[in-house]
This record gives sequence, structure tokens and C-alpha cells, in this order.
Amino acid sequence: MGDNSLPTFFHVQQAANLLNGVVYPTPVLGSSYLDEQCGGCVFAKCENLQRTGAFKFRGAYYAVSRKEAVTPFKAVVTLSSGNHAQGIALASRLLGYPAYIVMPDPVNPFKRAKVEEFGVNVRIVRTRAEGEELAQELVHAHQGVFIHPFNDCDVIAGQGTAILEFLQEVPQLDVVLAPLGGGGLLSGACLAAHGLNPLIRVYGCEPARALDALLSLREGRILMPHTVDTMAEGLRTSLGNLTLSILQDHLQDVFVVEEEEIIPAMKMAFEQMKMVIEPSSAVALAPILRGEPALCGKRVGVVLSGGNISMSDVCSMMGGM
Amino acid sequence: MGDNSLPTFFHVQQAANLLNGVVYPTPVLGSSYLDEQCGGCVFAKCENLQRTGAFKFRGAYYAVSRKEAVTPFKAVVTLSSGNHAQGIALASRLLGYPAYIVMPDPVNPFKRAKVEEFGVNVRIVRTRAEGEELAQELVHAHQGVFIHPFNDCDVIAGQGTAILEFLQEVPQLDVVLAPLGGGGLLSGACLAAHGLNPLIRVYGCEPARALDALLSLREGRILMPHTVDTMAEGLRTSLGNLTLSILQDHLQDVFVVEEEEIIPAMKMAFEQMKMVIEPSSAVALAPILRGEPALCGKRVGVVLSGGNISMSDVCSMMGGM
Repeated sequence: MGDNSLPTFFHVQQAANLLNGVVYPTPVLGSSYLDEQCGGCVFAKCENLQRTGAFKFRGAYYAVSRKEAVTPFKAVVTLSSGNHAQGIALASRLLGYPAYIVMPDPVNPFKRAKVEEFGVNVRIVRTRAEGEELAQELVHAHQGVFIHPFNDCDVIAGQGTAILEFLQEVPQLDVVLAPLGGGGLLSGACLAAHGLNPLIRVYGCEPARALDALLSLREGRILMPHTVDTMAEGLRTSLGNLTLSILQDHLQDVFVVEEEEIIPAMKMAFEQMKMVIEPSSAVALAPILRGEPALCGKRVGVVLSGGNISMSDVCSMMGGM
Repeated sequence: MGDNSLPTFFHVQQAANLLNGVVYPTPVLGSSYLDEQCGGCVFAKCENLQRTGAFKFRGAYYAVSRKEAVTPFKAVVTLSSGNHAQGIALASRLLGYPAYIVMPDPVNPFKRAKVEEFGVNVRIVRTRAEGEELAQELVHAHQGVFIHPFNDCDVIAGQGTAILEFLQEVPQLDVVLAPLGGGGLLSGACLAAHGLNPLIRVYGCEPARALDALLSLREGRILMPHTVDTMAEGLRTSLGNLTLSILQDHLQDVFVVEEEEIIPAMKMAFEQMKMVIEPSSAVALAPILRGEPALCGKRVGVVLSGGNISMSDVCSMMGGM
């Protein structure tokens, strides 16, 4: 961080140039089932099919590449128990750096195993505060660069390329929906969408059980969530100063999603769309499935942000239905 | 049937022209995981993302359209408990005909519900013989046309369009793999692949527990399977005279897949590819996952043929692992 200038549409375009040929141009699917549910026309950008199973690879790869061009380093360090960790692990391997991944508990064993497949160094810590300290130590010890999961101009620009691609394929979208955790994807979505068409309405989708972004946007300062006991583990984080600023300028509104809506949305994605998505992604489908009035009659683009979930976790979640 | 002339590559091209704009041009995905497993380069054609969740819609729509051009009829009749039934149901609705679907037991409740969503007439019968009789009655009673699930030139030509699209997107495939039940998809695959490049090797993938096609091809006559207790319910049927002839001319070989290979292949598709596939589709992934020597070093195209399975069925299957 330390840099208060915000990324722009131009940065997203630069990121798209660099990522061309590195990221998969993920498919966009229609769904007559979703169309009927919201009375609009829905398109889904399948970032669950991105390399590492989530959009996070975009920002991770772009950030490592960009920082390399600014200051030399010998390793990449991050603090993430989620999909950003996998993104950094693959990006570092492709770019030839060792990676040190600090994971604060609770760690999802499936995601941890996926990270370890890349042969990186994983360190588990009990708290985020402990993790921040360890990450700084690793940066100093290994001449590393720290890549924040979302509050980083390059990461945000990288994530925005998903929406740039989406709008290149479906230029006439009226609305873009994405899950809202730290706000990296959604900030990138805002820059990309409004760079192409300022009339597109960009909405965040936030779990009621990790409700901090909506409140932070209302108050104009970063608030911590009161609870983080949502199954949408990727959305438990609060905003950063960069994502708060961008979202304040661009975001239309936040749809709050109840916990009970998440599993039915996952099930719908499985059975109707044949797509494996994780709970955080299902949060962005929930407003469509409940027929949110703002979506009625609109051309709605939704980002299926990730699909990193084990079958055994899926089945134990479904068992609770 | 009644027509002993076989379909050709030209018929597949005609079908592709008619189906253009009607079928989804389904995405082709790579998978570094599959590449590693077979030591080749694997591409998956995602027909589980086709309308109705399976390639069957292609042949169904093309057959109804073609027969309409030959002899007038007032209804469409078929005999199928599986994905062909859904294909006929949607095709009939789109083309403005009532449809009568005869389903021999055992009927998968998920597939039945999907068929009934299209508002067609479903009749359940105890045996296939009883179903054939009822289907003929319905044809006479409603001035209907009967569309066979696979032993029909138009159906075969329609299914072939999936492989035509596949090879237009990835022209350099060495090998094409598809599941082998009645042989409609595989016959279409042979015509399409060898029409474009006679050197492509086309393989069928057949469950050991419904092993009739391999034996029929060896003997040169249609044999019934000794057992049909495979979970790959779409592959329990035997060949027809048209599919037998085409496969005898074109098929490289048949990979026999053991029952124990099916669930791990489904799990792999879910966890690595984020794709929901049904057991019949998983049969075509199994030879890749076991590192079948004929695939080593090759550019392998595999058809993910369908994804019509409920989450509860998936989870009860996974529970048995």
C-alpha cells in the first residue's frame, strides 16, 4: 500500500494486455432458468474455470509482474487462507520466484492442499495479526515483496480484467453483480465497467453474517464485521482504503444475502448450470434467485468468482438442507 | 429406421447449418491436471453445458426438423428414460409439437422432473418391450413421428455437430474419446472427425458392466449386454444397425471402464474442472485418468456428454467412496 493514488480504467487495460495468453479467457454462459427467476436476461462469467479455480489468479499474476518491473525482489509473500494464496502460488511459479504463504486459521484443508501442490512454503498462524507480523518477517528475511489480497492497485487492476473480458463478450450488460469481501474484484469490476460504459450499474453481494462493507460505505470509513460466521469464507474480510474509495465512487448498492440463501444458490448452480461454485460465489447468485426488483427486465452479468470446494464439503453442506 | 443408407460427413455439415443459433456452441476447456494424468494435452468439450444439459438436444432438434420437411406429422413420440427425452421435449416445444415420452423403468426422478418441466406427456412403462408397443400406439393415435434415441440418421448427424464444433475450435486433435452406449454420439463423432481428418483416432469408452458394444463390434452383429447394472445409466443400451455399421468402419477401439473408476472420475471433474457431469460422462474421462498408453503424448479431445444428476444423487454416490 503506501500509495494513495487509485487505479483507473487505464490500469485495467494495461493488465489485460499483460495477462493476455496467461489467464484463460473464461466462458460466459446463459441460463434460461436464471432468466426466469429474475425476469431479466442473465449471463454468467465463469471465473470458477479460471486457472487455480478462481479470478484471484488474475490479480496475483499481474501484481507480481508489475512489482518486478519496479523494484527487484527474490521472493513473493502473502497473507491469505483462500484463493489469493493459490493465485500467488501459481503466479510465483510461472514467474520463477519462491513463494511464502501465511495462512491464518481457520484454514480450509482443500484450499491448503491446492496451494501446497504448487510446492510453495505454507505457514499456518492462529490470528491475522500474528500473520501480518510473520509476513513482514518473511519479507525481510527473503528480500520478498508482499502482495496484499485486495488492497493493492495492481491486484485490483488485474481482477478488473475479468469484467473487461465479460463486457467485450456481452457489451450490452445493464448490471454487473459480484461478491463483496475485501472488494478487490468489485473495485476492478467498477473500473472496467464504468471505463466502458458509465451507465452500467455495479452491485456488490455481501453475506448478512459478514456485513461490514455496506456499513463501511454508508459511514465512509472501514468498519470490521460484527460476525464472520458465514460459510462464504472468501467474504469474511473487511475493505481496504483503496477498495473503500473506489466503491464509494462507483458502487450502485449492496445486496445483503442471508445465510439460508447460499446453499440453494450453490445447488441451483450445480443442477441447472452444471457448475461447481463455492459458497462465496453463490452469494452473487442469490439476488437473482430471489428476484431482486432492481434486476427485473435487465441484462444482468454475474461473476461466478470461484469453485474451490471439495465434494465432501459440498455434500456435508447439502446434507444440512 | 427402415432406411439402410448411412449418414455421412455431409449430413453432419447440414445438421450444423440447421443447428447454428439453436444449440449453444459449448466451451472447450483445458485441464493441466488431465494433461499430467495421461502425459498428453487434453481438451474437454463441455456438452454438459448444452441446452437440456446434454448433447442429446442436438440430434433431437435436428431429427424433428428434418422429419418435418419429409412427411407432415402432428406430434413427436420417443422412448427414452434419459437425456434424449429432455432433448425431444425441448425440441418439440421449440418447433411447436406436442411430445409423448415413453420412459421404461428404472426412471431417474431427476431426469423425469426435468422432462416434465417442458410440459410434455410422460408415460412410465415397466419394460422396454412394453414401451415400444406403447410408442407405436401413440404414433398411430396422434399422427406422431417416432424419433429413436440413436439409431436414426438425423439423430446421428445432429450429435456429430458437437465434434464438428470441437474440431473447428481445436483442429489439431489426434484422438477423440466419447462414451459408448447406443453409439449415436460416437457414430456422429466418427463421421465428423474422419470427414475433417481421416487420421484422427476415435475411441469409445464403455462400462465393463454394460459391455455389449465392444463384443458386438468384434462379432459384427448386435449383442445385448449380459448385465446392465452400471451406474452409467445412459450407457446401458445396445447398438443399433446404423451405429454398428458406422462404428465398424470408423472406430479405432473401445476402452473398457471398470465401475470403480467412475466415481473418482466424477470427483475429479467436480474438484479439478469445476464441472458437474453424470456417471456416463465420467466413463470417457476414466481412460485419461488411468493413463491409457494410447493417449500418451497425444492431443486428446474428450466429450463431457451430460450433467443431468441431482446433488443428492452425487452425494449418495460420493458417500460410497
